[in-house]
Amino acid sequence: MTTELTSMGIAAKDAAFELATATTATKNLALTLIADELEANAESILAANAKDIEAGRSAGLTDALLDRLLLNPQRLHGIANDVRNVISLPDPVGSEFDSKVLENGMALCKRRVPLGVVGVIYEARPNVTIDIAALCLKTGNASILRGGKETFHSNMELVKVIQVALSKAKLPAASVQYIEKPDRELVSQLLKLDDYVDMIIPRGGAGLHKMCKENSTIPVIIGGFGISHVFVDESADLARSVDVVVNSKVQRPSACNALDTLLVHKNIAESFIPQLIEKIKNDVAIVACPESLALTAKASDVRAVAEGDFDTEWLSFTLGIRIVDSVEHAIEHMRVHNASHSDAIMTNNLHNAERFINSVGSAAVYVNASTRFTDGAQFGLGAEVAVSTQKLHARGPMGLEELTSYKWVGKADYLPRP
Amino acid sequence: MTTELTSMGIAAKDAAFELATATTATKNLALTLIADELEANAESILAANAKDIEAGRSAGLTDALLDRLLLNPQRLHGIANDVRNVISLPDPVGSEFDSKVLENGMALCKRRVPLGVVGVIYEARPNVTIDIAALCLKTGNASILRGGKETFHSNMELVKVIQVALSKAKLPAASVQYIEKPDRELVSQLLKLDDYVDMIIPRGGAGLHKMCKENSTIPVIIGGFGISHVFVDESADLARSVDVVVNSKVQRPSACNALDTLLVHKNIAESFIPQLIEKIKNDVAIVACPESLALTAKASDVRAVAEGDFDTEWLSFTLGIRIVDSVEHAIEHMRVHNASHSDAIMTNNLHNAERFINSVGSAAVYVNASTRFTDGAQFGLGAEVAVSTQKLHARGPMGLEELTSYKWVGKADYLPRP
Repeated sequence: MTTELTSMGIAAKDAAFELATATTATKNLALTLIADELEANAESILAANAKDIEAGRSAGLTDALLDRLLLNPQRLHGIANDVRNVISLPDPVGSEFDSKVLENGMALCKRRVPLGVVGVIYEARPNVTIDIAALCLKTGNASILRGGKETFHSNMELVKVIQVALSKAKLPAASVQYIEKPDRELVSQLLKLDDYVDMIIPRGGAGLHKMCKENSTIPVIIGGFGISHVFVDESADLARSVDVVVNSKVQRPSACNALDTLLVHKNIAESFIPQLIEKIKNDVAIVACPESLALTAKASDVRAVAEGDFDTEWLSFTLGIRIVDSVEHAIEHMRVHNASHSDAIMTNNLHNAERFINSVGSAAVYVNASTRFTDGAQFGLGAEVAVSTQKLHARGPMGLEELTSYKWVGKADYLPRP
Repeated sequence: MTTELTSMGIAAKDAAFELATATTATKNLALTLIADELEANAESILAANAKDIEAGRSAGLTDALLDRLLLNPQRLHGIANDVRNVISLPDPVGSEFDSKVLENGMALCKRRVPLGVVGVIYEARPNVTIDIAALCLKTGNASILRGGKETFHSNMELVKVIQVALSKAKLPAASVQYIEKPDRELVSQLLKLDDYVDMIIPRGGAGLHKMCKENSTIPVIIGGFGISHVFVDESADLARSVDVVVNSKVQRPSACNALDTLLVHKNIAESFIPQLIEKIKNDVAIVACPESLALTAKASDVRAVAEGDFDTEWLSFTLGIRIVDSVEHAIEHMRVHNASHSDAIMTNNLHNAERFINSVGSAAVYVNASTRFTDGAQFGLGAEVAVSTQKLHARGPMGLEELTSYKWVGKADYLPRP
């Protein structure tokens, strides 16, 4: 099958071959040049961004969305500094692990290598273009990018800046490519480019992930969404639990690690829930199970739970509340409602803590801590490519290492035993 | 979408939930019972196998294929002992790695957990049924198996034995399920069961892998085939190189890690190739590049290379030979011809060795050793689920650890920094 994208695939694979043996110094030089060029070309980038903002306003985008699209000198400087931060991170490529000497004398290890070519499909936010390009470059991967149409002019200008920096660093221009044409058909073609592309990262909503999963013949990193739970066990420190629930729910409700459903042990519900409601009654809308309705009555916005509420990722100032009988009951609720992202138990009971950790399906599970911790920066990864909720390759926040694969390297002795 | 397989998927996911917290002792008990039941039910298993052999003979299967299908008391005893070997391997589930304490005091680590549900589609060889079921069980995964129609009666009997053992060990019978009906449509349904199945392992030829890759919405482990190369550099120990090439090509030519194409540096071709031919002239058919034709003339079966020969995985006593100018030329040949499985360089030149290791696309790369080393047992993994040639999750021989995922576990301190 020859497609319009095949030539991009070939060019990316050729670039990846060179990038795989590029030194860290060369890759860092390219990153330095990208950061510098971003600042040097601020005028043309901001002018292109202004076109996107104008088009977005005509198209009736919300103010929130327009703000996501907007670049200004401060934001551009921030993006350049994010690139400089990537320079300071250690290059995982070439490091060896799981090394051992076999009985026959062969020295065997796994050596980290780039994945090869990474395809990224994303929405809004022009900073993703620079962010992903920089992380792929640092790990020796070529990338093929496809941003949303709302940021088309900004992205064109940003990619131009990247290409200039690449050629100044004497790295192949095809190390970072951008699918320019608006046809959605090109996304379908990208997803079938398994001869050239090694991984697809969708950065966007559940619909984008579903589309990639259903149509891609290339491995896809699924993630970035899921129902998050906090279970307050009967032995929990209630004051601390109030703080954790408030933080999990209120700090940034639009984040994928923000709390959706609070589960409360029946033995402490009467004392805990009113304490919590006192703190959030004016800010958070409550969706309560029948048993907790009376306890939440002081909130300014309360309604009884309906079909599907506990399967809803709110992404807003709404909180589901359910009273449960035990840790097992909490686990069962989370199983039925597909906990897969970030979940926490507040407890002082060791058995319940371990039971919870091992039984829930979450990518990240916390004992006495906020679900908001699930984040590459909080985890000290230095960067975050995506948050995976699938089980293969990587789970939870993905940093630079998760943009690598490994190869087995064996050195002598020379014949295997029969 | 409700399919015939949905109920199997639900049952498997329920079983996986229980298996995830089953103790190693319980899982080992089930394995012991499987091994014992295999031997106790030898009569009925061999009777079922005799039906498969008879049907295969009527269908005109080759003797080689019939031999692959055949079970006898010795082979059955061997299979039971393979299960006992799995008992002796360490259980990876629950072990922690990459642990650290964050600046804020939170103790963070990755804890190994089962993948969940593994779907396996395989051909011939009834031992795969037991082998895969045992490895999945040991790692706390539920499995849904689909064997070839040639081993239908044997597999039915083997699965019956497994189910009896599972129920004696008080583990869910749905921990190991088998798709009985012959409809190919059911395989398509399995590949779309992404709500319940976490990983698909195809064990068979390239066609099966391609079908899975193109149709599955579940991550697929691609592997088990690829063109293997040995490059004999000008600084190589020629006597040792002869031994390695003979071993790589002749020991088991039907294996996926057997040598396909030999690349020889031009400066030693005249001395090396005749030495090699002397050893293999009566056993191996030679497909020679124009430059090596005269040097291979003493072989009893030689022909000039034709279009596509260097892209052929021979799986037989045939060897492609090409003379190259340098290590870069060898690497370029391997790039064009998609080296992806197991490849070796014979050299005494450190720069060339490292250049080769870092530039070739192989899952396993050797310096001065045979490509035949790529094997779970040789690598000391204790078991081999598959040999992956893809870059995500696992690459090369996959053992028990590669049947696991991980979850991030964070314990206090309780609020993230802004």
